[in-house]
Amino acid sequence: MCGPMQGAIVGAIVWEGWAQDDAGARKLVESGAVRCEPCHDHGAVGPMAGIISPSMPVWIVRDGEHGHRTFSNLNEGLGKALRFGANGPAVLTRLEWMTTKLRKVLAAAFEISGPIELKPLMAQALHMGDEVHNRNAAATSLFLKKLAPALLKSKASRSDVAEAIAFIAGNDHFFLDISMAACKAMTDAARGIPLSSVVTAMARNGVEFGVRVSGAGSRWFTAPAPLVDGLYFPGYSIADAAPDLGDSAITETAGLGGFAMAAAPAIVNFVGGTADDAIANTTQMGHITLGRNSAFTLPAMSFAGTPAGVDARRVVDTGICPVINTGIAHKEAGVGQIGAGITRAPLDRFAKAVSALAAELPAE
Amino acid sequence: MCGPMQGAIVGAIVWEGWAQDDAGARKLVESGAVRCEPCHDHGAVGPMAGIISPSMPVWIVRDGEHGHRTFSNLNEGLGKALRFGANGPAVLTRLEWMTTKLRKVLAAAFEISGPIELKPLMAQALHMGDEVHNRNAAATSLFLKKLAPALLKSKASRSDVAEAIAFIAGNDHFFLDISMAACKAMTDAARGIPLSSVVTAMARNGVEFGVRVSGAGSRWFTAPAPLVDGLYFPGYSIADAAPDLGDSAITETAGLGGFAMAAAPAIVNFVGGTADDAIANTTQMGHITLGRNSAFTLPAMSFAGTPAGVDARRVVDTGICPVINTGIAHKEAGVGQIGAGITRAPLDRFAKAVSALAAELPAE
Repeated sequence: MCGPMQGAIVGAIVWEGWAQDDAGARKLVESGAVRCEPCHDHGAVGPMAGIISPSMPVWIVRDGEHGHRTFSNLNEGLGKALRFGANGPAVLTRLEWMTTKLRKVLAAAFEISGPIELKPLMAQALHMGDEVHNRNAAATSLFLKKLAPALLKSKASRSDVAEAIAFIAGNDHFFLDISMAACKAMTDAARGIPLSSVVTAMARNGVEFGVRVSGAGSRWFTAPAPLVDGLYFPGYSIADAAPDLGDSAITETAGLGGFAMAAAPAIVNFVGGTADDAIANTTQMGHITLGRNSAFTLPAMSFAGTPAGVDARRVVDTGICPVINTGIAHKEAGVGQIGAGITRAPLDRFAKAVSALAAELPAE
Repeated sequence: MCGPMQGAIVGAIVWEGWAQDDAGARKLVESGAVRCEPCHDHGAVGPMAGIISPSMPVWIVRDGEHGHRTFSNLNEGLGKALRFGANGPAVLTRLEWMTTKLRKVLAAAFEISGPIELKPLMAQALHMGDEVHNRNAAATSLFLKKLAPALLKSKASRSDVAEAIAFIAGNDHFFLDISMAACKAMTDAARGIPLSSVVTAMARNGVEFGVRVSGAGSRWFTAPAPLVDGLYFPGYSIADAAPDLGDSAITETAGLGGFAMAAAPAIVNFVGGTADDAIANTTQMGHITLGRNSAFTLPAMSFAGTPAGVDARRVVDTGICPVINTGIAHKEAGVGQIGAGITRAPLDRFAKAVSALAAELPAE
């Protein structure tokens, strides 16, 4: 396991109260007393280290058409956060507040509001400069606007509501985890189509980068995770970075994030490059997708839909690899985020997936 | 006076309680018992009909460097609104609620928050798809995010706070009037420079379009207001429209609105044209301004500043007329908004202003 994932697991174990300290937590994992499994095996997605332990609250996103549900955890904000491998007292205290207070306040609001429709909200955010992966400034604001009246009508106390609103209003990435769960709900709808080479998941764990295609079930086609040549926070460089990490590439799998960068020219301040690069990335991704999502339109490209439905065969045919916007974690446990950037899913794992599907073809 | 302005004045007079009905209100104006003066003569700006009567609450914007203050009224939302000349019971009831409840709730919040800095908020909105004239979706959200924690900490009752937040969250144009007062604060800072041909105000009243330049004090250079060939709501056409109307062209005067359309490609759904037109408008405006505002950057144009400081001489030299995004009111009193579009400030009034300045030049 990479450093930030180790940091997040240790933090989660101490926070759960299963161990007194880091050393005790490490022993529990090494002995097998605490088991670690991929989020995707539980219908979930977690950004960066992506650790969800049993006591953590989760978002539940439901596909209204097919009925399946997906899950993600609540976003802690940037910098020193468990998902980036930080696990100090401030991180665990915030996690405790999110689990006790924030969860209850949100649950009380949802009792009033009922489910919130995510697709129109995400579509609107694309018209407001977000690509709903590394830029969720508009989506978070829109979500808060939807939820605030229900928060105020709920049974939660005024000071708890004020604290919750201040936390959400102060974290432009709050919507990220919701976006990820929504994207997994969309891509899960494409699972299990015999022989289909449509990509249903891309995920990284700081060691390997894995790809799933529809026709190959839950099998991961993996290769080493790349380093990210992005914009590093002052004092850090690529030498400090963990390799590419997290389930958040589910947004690109669904045609958002790096695929929808044309919607979000301002993101280049965060991930690097120019506004022209952002348009070029979206244009290029149109060559490896099966179509465009007419629900998510891009004003800067004459309202064309986002390129959606990555076809592993098209990736291999064109040599164009999926572009992914991503945060960058320090390679050591306990530090946290040190930058953000743009990376690519390397070619060979798509080739592996296509070969595996080919092997299943009936003999002629 | 044009129809919508008559409708708004009649509505304001009835709402103030100075007359029992429309006929009584008309008599008060015709007799001179109620005097009408331009907002700009009172440091104020009002969108569309722009009527501010003595009991209406106003935003106060202060130029921190020069100390001058500007004012605008509170935004009622789209469609049937006093500023579009509608004046039925629903319009006056909402105006009463805004004056009694909303004003008090906002005042209580500002007691907690203190003044809110507008320039960074507007700059952020430009990175979120607004041009802060006809598109204020992001700016309104950002403003609400700033204000919500203070609203909750204020002495206002929970139900009043809930009502205020629901109203603001439901009106993406709520920030418009604040943007206008901020723009006037910026352009007022350029007033009174001897012989300067920089434009300090553009305003329309549905009959005339007026331009002020810095070197000519408070003199208006006027010409007939044009009709707007925009996107009309179903059932309406240009034949139903009042000529161009309102003080909101102060946003273009400050280099925002039509001048910053490159920030807001999605606005073409509301005002017409294509995303390429939006970029082209901003590019073209760069030929008639004295510089660019480095505080307001445009991601889609490699973070170039908005073209700012319209020079009447450059308008006349190039024949390029300032582009203005605008709402469109029905030509008859009492109806309201029927569309939105893009118009141009015609050339001859800038020529008039330049001639007037030339007449003041010392003889050689």
